[in-house]
Amino acid sequence: MIKTDLFGIYREYIACLNQQDWPRLEQFIGDGVSYNGQRVGLQKYREMLERDFDAIPDLYFDIQLLICEPPYLASRLRFDCTPKGEIFGLPVNGKRVSFTENVFYELREGKIENVWSVIDKAAIEAQL
Amino acid sequence: MIKTDLFGIYREYIACLNQQDWPRLEQFIGDGVSYNGQRVGLQKYREMLERDFDAIPDLYFDIQLLICEPPYLASRLRFDCTPKGEIFGLPVNGKRVSFTENVFYELREGKIENVWSVIDKAAIEAQL
Repeated sequence: MIKTDLFGIYREYIACLNQQDWPRLEQFIGDGVSYNGQRVGLQKYREMLERDFDAIPDLYFDIQLLICEPPYLASRLRFDCTPKGEIFGLPVNGKRVSFTENVFYELREGKIENVWSVIDKAAIEAQL
Repeated sequence: MIKTDLFGIYREYIACLNQQDWPRLEQFIGDGVSYNGQRVGLQKYREMLERDFDAIPDLYFDIQLLICEPPYLASRLRFDCTPKGEIFGLPVNGKRVSFTENVFYELREGKIENVWSVIDKAAIEAQL
């Protein structure tokens, strides 16, 4: 697939997350998706995202930087949100926090098959 | 610059770090380099790296995934090392740990001018 296709798919994927349009997730995520080297599959991947939105009701994925070299994408995401209790083991308890995630994706036939993510937990900690 | 040039520069930069060849760092890093949105400059950037090697004598930068869309590079680095005391506020104290860093670079005229890095502190914590 060419670069513009991957950008388009990714932006639609992020819109799908922000709309919490879970039935549509299968358009973007492969059945056998892996997360940080571990096969989780579509259903568990969806549950992980649903849990994120439960913990952070105002969660919003904001793309700060997006680069593409097919079949890979790399995205820097920014979050500016209010987790209601604990996240990543940190007692945020309704405080507004900002943090980033740097994440790579590998796509096959238009679907995300591999995700390698690092979330800036240290940035959240520094704000508590 | 074209993609193959950037890959070449980046691989030489990583070799320079692994050799701790600090006088050579200026070949790769711009005078006014910024780190996570903050202008630090070459000298402070070098000091940051020297501190990393002081804290982690067997530090070695291992490129796991590297993608390029000029003028950007995105790299997933893996570390398998033995920090002697504390790192990122965690009491590692000589235990062997593995963790990753997902990092973006922006290059201008062959030098790194912006670095946006996220290090997986949570992975280290989970190993202690």
